[in-house]
Amino acid sequence: MTDPIRVTVWGENRHEQLEPEVAKRYPDGMHGAVAQGIEANLGESAVVRTATLDEPEHGLTEEVLRGTDVLTWWGHAAHGEVSDEVAERVQRHVLEGMGLIVLHSGHWSKVFTRLMGTTCTLRWRAEHDRELVWTVDPTHPIAQGVPHPMIIDEDEMYGEFFDIPAPDELVFISSFSGGEVFRSGCTFKRGHGKIFYFRPGDQEYPTYFHEGVRKVISNAVEWAVTRRPERALPTLLRYETEDFYNGHGYRGALRADAGEASE
Amino acid sequence: MTDPIRVTVWGENRHEQLEPEVAKRYPDGMHGAVAQGIEANLGESAVVRTATLDEPEHGLTEEVLRGTDVLTWWGHAAHGEVSDEVAERVQRHVLEGMGLIVLHSGHWSKVFTRLMGTTCTLRWRAEHDRELVWTVDPTHPIAQGVPHPMIIDEDEMYGEFFDIPAPDELVFISSFSGGEVFRSGCTFKRGHGKIFYFRPGDQEYPTYFHEGVRKVISNAVEWAVTRRPERALPTLLRYETEDFYNGHGYRGALRADAGEASE
Amino acid sequence: MTDPIRVTVWGENRHEQLEPEVAKRYPDGMHGAVAQGIEANLGESAVVRTATLDEPEHGLTEEVLRGTDVLTWWGHAAHGEVSDEVAERVQRHVLEGMGLIVLHSGHWSKVFTRLMGTTCTLRWRAEHDRELVWTVDPTHPIAQGVPHPMIIDEDEMYGEFFDIPAPDELVFISSFSGGEVFRSGCTFKRGHGKIFYFRPGDQEYPTYFHEGVRKVISNAVEWAVTRRPERALPTLLRYETEDFYNGHGYRGALRADAGEASE
Amino acid sequence: MTDPIRVTVWGENRHEQLEPEVAKRYPDGMHGAVAQGIEANLGESAVVRTATLDEPEHGLTEEVLRGTDVLTWWGHAAHGEVSDEVAERVQRHVLEGMGLIVLHSGHWSKVFTRLMGTTCTLRWRAEHDRELVWTVDPTHPIAQGVPHPMIIDEDEMYGEFFDIPAPDELVFISSFSGGEVFRSGCTFKRGHGKIFYFRPGDQEYPTYFHEGVRKVISNAVEWAVTRRPERALPTLLRYETEDFYNGHGYRGALRADAGEASE
Repeated sequence: MTDPIRVTVWGENRHEQLEPEVAKRYPDGMHGAVAQGIEANLGESAVVRTATLDEPEHGLTEEVLRGTDVLTWWGHAAHGEVSDEVAERVQRHVLEGMGLIVLHSGHWSKVFTRLMGTTCTLRWRAEHDRELVWTVDPTHPIAQGVPHPMIIDEDEMYGEFFDIPAPDELVFISSFSGGEVFRSGCTFKRGHGKIFYFRPGDQEYPTYFHEGVRKVISNAVEWAVTRRPERALPTLLRYETEDFYNGHGYRGALRADAGEASE
Repeated sequence: MTDPIRVTVWGENRHEQLEPEVAKRYPDGMHGAVAQGIEANLGESAVVRTATLDEPEHGLTEEVLRGTDVLTWWGHAAHGEVSDEVAERVQRHVLEGMGLIVLHSGHWSKVFTRLMGTTCTLRWRAEHDRELVWTVDPTHPIAQGVPHPMIIDEDEMYGEFFDIPAPDELVFISSFSGGEVFRSGCTFKRGHGKIFYFRPGDQEYPTYFHEGVRKVISNAVEWAVTRRPERALPTLLRYETEDFYNGHGYRGALRADAGEASE
Repeated sequence: MTDPIRVTVWGENRHEQLEPEVAKRYPDGMHGAVAQGIEANLGESAVVRTATLDEPEHGLTEEVLRGTDVLTWWGHAAHGEVSDEVAERVQRHVLEGMGLIVLHSGHWSKVFTRLMGTTCTLRWRAEHDRELVWTVDPTHPIAQGVPHPMIIDEDEMYGEFFDIPAPDELVFISSFSGGEVFRSGCTFKRGHGKIFYFRPGDQEYPTYFHEGVRKVISNAVEWAVTRRPERALPTLLRYETEDFYNGHGYRGALRADAGEASE
Repeated sequence: MTDPIRVTVWGENRHEQLEPEVAKRYPDGMHGAVAQGIEANLGESAVVRTATLDEPEHGLTEEVLRGTDVLTWWGHAAHGEVSDEVAERVQRHVLEGMGLIVLHSGHWSKVFTRLMGTTCTLRWRAEHDRELVWTVDPTHPIAQGVPHPMIIDEDEMYGEFFDIPAPDELVFISSFSGGEVFRSGCTFKRGHGKIFYFRPGDQEYPTYFHEGVRKVISNAVEWAVTRRPERALPTLLRYETEDFYNGHGYRGALRADAGEASE
């Protein structure tokens, strides 16, 4: 009845090229594993494509983004190679209404830090900690069908303080065998778009083959779709008294002459 | 007992130079009126200085910001003239722990939009609306001693949708005689810093002489001070298992060799 | 595909019996008008029944509530006549997972005040104010298809301070022609249930025939459904180390003997 | 300069009477240890007294509560013995402006569950877990001077799901050596009062002698003080158009006659 969700899975795809063990772990790339997990869960209600850093414009042209309902983002070693122009474009599309799922080390991407306004730093350790993902918002759509707790046998550790704005909704908190905790599932609304940050997943571990992790990402894709009449950036407009629906464009802050009111 | 709060009041100071009626309304500049309001309310518990756009580095050198506990920001006609370097510097100081009070048309400043990650747009009209400022968080320190409602006889109208992240705390909601509403007092924590956005105040109206408006700004200055051992940016650090207090600096995402774990 | 949402519309139904002009305005009762609005919007995706105060157990037996996915509540003149037993039962079902939509003067019902923990008081006036309902959370499912602003030509005024917990999400803010503002669309999650408070609607005005008001209530019904494996109250349970899934019942706070651990 | 904060530390004081090892651990009662911790931290800026269950009216008469700025609450084995009248009285005083600090097993007290509206249940285990308390809101006044993380060598485990409303501010998250996590420091504003829930502390462990735990409770006492002109319950009042400051008492929901407007 409703059109399928158009998902673009973005992957940096560098570890897979540079580190043989990562290539072996993720033969279709990490983006491939993420895409397969979404397809396995959402079936015909989603159409999934992938895009990677080394494509022209990182595979994220204006046209691709305009045709994307939800974008997932995984990056790590090459955040700095993402062009400012593309990062700005992705930010704009989120504010216009595209959903965004930021995965794991994507916390430090240009896209996420621009949208959050903070450093998005954290503490970390790659020492095979067991991760337990606990649900603290049991009626949230993203948590449906997810074990409580969800056990990930081995994963990188991320710990607090995670320098993000207080999330609109805190869905999951993780603990690690070393004792650290992390706000690992967080929602943020920005402009006309919805954002979900989800912690698990690393190039050193097969996390994106984990059934529960795939379920969460798939739930998040469905949650992040915004159903509005059109995709549009919030704009600054002047409205005359008693006319609530027809805004005028903004023509500069300083009066051009005495007759024209400025903001 | 505690040291006085070091406040820097930043003003764009353009309308005052270009429009005689604004210069007449605010003979010491709008920044002068804001500064006087803080001094009148906080007395010896604050030391207040001002800085303006046309000073070198807009008066906001590294040294000035390092010596500032709370910065207030009013800009309007010349947001684009604020250098990216200074905007970035102010953002960094906020994330390190400097308080920030953003006033009225400062909503569209580089500093505020960078910290929010959204467009920070809104609807507006300059037609002498009466503004009523209602307290919806009556125990908030910023609302203490403020009338409910606070009446501002004439002011510019700002209306929803105001494209900001959902505030951590919504303290005030304004209505205007034309019927619009606005989330006019909002707190945000970002990094190690605290931010308060406050709507009232415009070059066309003597809002910064209003006793209630001055009380709110002064309360906000006190609220925005962060008492931590030192001012520092949150950082990304690696922590070994069972060592919770000594982080290591980050040395790159890709392994230099097989023996060194990367994030 | 999914089963239809089972909605029970509860109405106090006293004004309709005691005041001829209310009976004339709402010939099928206010509950009848609310039910028709939901049916008109949700069609076959909902099955709607009504229940009223004067029925045995107010029409809200254990069996009725067990068969209800979402309950809407309108009461006003006879909050005190709702039995404590039924109020407690409704609260329990909400915490177990039943959705609850509280309408207008239902703010002062036993059910809502028990769930909020506060007085739920406000300021009011019945003097034909025009109400404007502004959306401040434009991606919220409850706001989809609702005009911004939504205009209600005449309605009772409710003003701040509204003594509720800060809502999880603030969806709508109303202004009134007299100048008051009100947080008029608020979501709250409690236990395994979701609650939406919506302000418009009064026996003195035909508000429940307003297309926009009906759209909001219908959206809220869809939003309030919780899809969990079973409806159950959160419980206090003891879990042994490394057994994350099998809790034991609680057997008292004081040790019965040395061998049994107490909480 | 400001008057000292008047603190009442309430303790159930049953374990101390019934279990010799608890009496030995807390020779002045658990309430005694909590009171001493506050005195040690706040010195002359607080005056602290204690009250216990077995006193007439549990030591919480109208007069005592009227003379209390902040009440701390520890109960466990005898929640059911607290009279409904006193629980209601404490709830009313909180809504009027008294601060409330709920400690550990006080989560299941009548006072806390009435104010939250939920079951306030959780998972638990008393098996000498190490607790790490992590700060996730580093600028919050309650977190100042508290180690990150704070280590408690042995304590009872409390785990999620903790059935509370999403807190206004999440200050601390705990992990336990068994792997569970818990939202262990939560603020809630209700009516004119401020509430802080803090997890650590149990009769089986000497937690209330821990310097960090004492620091948190003392910070919370200072935070919970509400500075308003008078202590008063929010009330329902009618306001005439353009009279924003003089409300009328409520005289019933049904019209007594045609001339009197009802709500």
